[in-house]
Amino acid sequence: MNPFVYSIPTDIYFGAGQIERLGEVVKAHGTKALLVYGGGSIRKNGVYDATVKELRSHGVDFVELGGVDPNPRVSSVRQGVALCREHGIDVILPVGGGSTIDCAKVIAASVKSELDPWEIVRHPERIGEVLPVVSVLTLSATGSEMDIFAVISNPETNDKLGVGHPKMRPVASILDPTYTCTVNAWQTASGTADIMSHLFEVYFSNTAGFMQDRMTEALLKTCVEFGPIAVKEPGNVEARANLMWTSSWAINGLMTLGKEVAWTVHPMEHELSAFYDITHGAGLAILTPHWMRAVLNEKTAPKFRELGVNVWGVDPKLETMEIARLAIDRTAAFFRQMGLPATLGEVGIDESKLAVMAAKVAPMIKGAYVELSEAEILAIYKAAL
Amino acid sequence: MNPFVYSIPTDIYFGAGQIERLGEVVKAHGTKALLVYGGGSIRKNGVYDATVKELRSHGVDFVELGGVDPNPRVSSVRQGVALCREHGIDVILPVGGGSTIDCAKVIAASVKSELDPWEIVRHPERIGEVLPVVSVLTLSATGSEMDIFAVISNPETNDKLGVGHPKMRPVASILDPTYTCTVNAWQTASGTADIMSHLFEVYFSNTAGFMQDRMTEALLKTCVEFGPIAVKEPGNVEARANLMWTSSWAINGLMTLGKEVAWTVHPMEHELSAFYDITHGAGLAILTPHWMRAVLNEKTAPKFRELGVNVWGVDPKLETMEIARLAIDRTAAFFRQMGLPATLGEVGIDESKLAVMAAKVAPMIKGAYVELSEAEILAIYKAAL
Repeated sequence: MNPFVYSIPTDIYFGAGQIERLGEVVKAHGTKALLVYGGGSIRKNGVYDATVKELRSHGVDFVELGGVDPNPRVSSVRQGVALCREHGIDVILPVGGGSTIDCAKVIAASVKSELDPWEIVRHPERIGEVLPVVSVLTLSATGSEMDIFAVISNPETNDKLGVGHPKMRPVASILDPTYTCTVNAWQTASGTADIMSHLFEVYFSNTAGFMQDRMTEALLKTCVEFGPIAVKEPGNVEARANLMWTSSWAINGLMTLGKEVAWTVHPMEHELSAFYDITHGAGLAILTPHWMRAVLNEKTAPKFRELGVNVWGVDPKLETMEIARLAIDRTAAFFRQMGLPATLGEVGIDESKLAVMAAKVAPMIKGAYVELSEAEILAIYKAAL
Repeated sequence: MNPFVYSIPTDIYFGAGQIERLGEVVKAHGTKALLVYGGGSIRKNGVYDATVKELRSHGVDFVELGGVDPNPRVSSVRQGVALCREHGIDVILPVGGGSTIDCAKVIAASVKSELDPWEIVRHPERIGEVLPVVSVLTLSATGSEMDIFAVISNPETNDKLGVGHPKMRPVASILDPTYTCTVNAWQTASGTADIMSHLFEVYFSNTAGFMQDRMTEALLKTCVEFGPIAVKEPGNVEARANLMWTSSWAINGLMTLGKEVAWTVHPMEHELSAFYDITHGAGLAILTPHWMRAVLNEKTAPKFRELGVNVWGVDPKLETMEIARLAIDRTAAFFRQMGLPATLGEVGIDESKLAVMAAKVAPMIKGAYVELSEAEILAIYKAAL
């Protein structure tokens, strides 16, 4: 275990009805909010109305930025920044899933900066003052409600880049699992795959972290237990609650601290959604088993064995390499069981841009669990065709 | 899973050498510190010198309160409060194990109050302003470095009471696992038993909390892996690091939130150490298996089965009740393997005061996993003779 600094000061209001704390929480951080949301589902399920009621009853003024896309674009960020400056906004209030919260975080980091938001994304070290972000979560997936990260797309350049800064971590988030009961099977399955991928990205590390690895397995088991239930029974609140709280802990930092990690599958998937605008979690479900097969070798087999025995319940008496292969098979089968695609063809991606993507990814994944050359990355993409 | 509010803002500086952050961290919270410590082991192992050097190099004035006992007494708290008032102290800096940190927390909660510290312990709802506490941990056990609790003894009344308040949670803690390499086998084993008991107290609950239970098992497995290693190889830093970080997470709140819990074995043990001043963790190791046997029945067996299969690796194909019994046997055997006592006789406790203790405990454990009458509590004490 390596030295680290742990600091996760986000306050979480978890459970049905916690929206009733929103007014008081927002007011503790500002008086004029930018209300950020996506395609408008929150207007149908009552979350918009509940939010507005809370703000009004606590005398919090607000202006709105709606229409934030999945894979949020830098153009939305720029629009939000302009609104903040025009109206003297002092707190950002995203209501939605990870895309909405990510967009809000980069708005918060850009308002007081002289830099264009895309420069903020490219150069997080130049982030200065960041407005407080209070989020209301409606989709369990990215963990943006409790982490320091945001992923922003720039369609002009086909770039989709992650940016992280401790000041971008929300100061508070409302997590009401009943808000996710209207999430459809596809988004539920994709969200679960995203949570699991966050866990895989840190589980496979060259640093020993026994406690972290057992905790990571605990969260993986929770996904395995409740992902399929939530897909089949969208109104199962216990399943939704477990997935929601797991989504936050998968990526808020605890599973990583003390270990050296460099993510591989996420950067590879970001290229897919940058070029084809596919659902992030679906792309991860396609790539993950292929990445696992590519990095399985004599040295990594014991780690895959742990995954097989501790998460998938594979018989520990089998040979290490056999358990490792079964762990990968079970992972792939699990994604298929939840209705996710297994090939790039199923989401309309052909070979044409794979070489360009591989070239873009290669320099981003230095220090990974298993170092991959551009040719090896391309081979993984091709295996997934 | 029940609704809850999560708020754990303690900053943790973890790893060898993190004492170098102490000056800057203390200075962020105050200018004049009360340095609290125990019997003087920190003077032998260099931690005292490193602490003082940090304070001096950052211009932080301090006065000292040494000699805090294991099972810290309210008299030490009163002494600390007097020093704080006399010297205008604005930050409390305990350097030691849970006893020292507990004492410091109640000092911090009493300085600005008109109440005597024992009244603060008895009436946490009357806690107002609390001075910031920055801790330097030297023993992995109580989790006081990241939680809201303190346990204080009053020898005049043979009382040992727990008190908890969110404002008593340390604002920051330095966790350097190498500081615990000089902890002897007895204290290491007792500390591990204490961590495990914190986990058992919340694991056995009547509220479903799948994710919390898998996380709790992860921490239990870490204790099972590294407790015996640390006992045998005191200088094994990886073992010490895993135990240290686990001690914090066992009780900081994450494992509990969303579940209804009412501790049983801890209050029972507090009576033992209130009357006989024995080591807390040793008392827990004695009582835990007997408590488990007393509450095992058809209704609770499935939970003990989970413990058996998921933590102790018992064959899941066996009958539920058999797995449950094996889980308890394995728990008892584990404590013995670490060199801890299995009977009250081994720590010099006879039958004479057991009835008095049972009468004191009975009203404290309402709402427990399995409700126990005074007679049933007495029976557990007697079974442990």
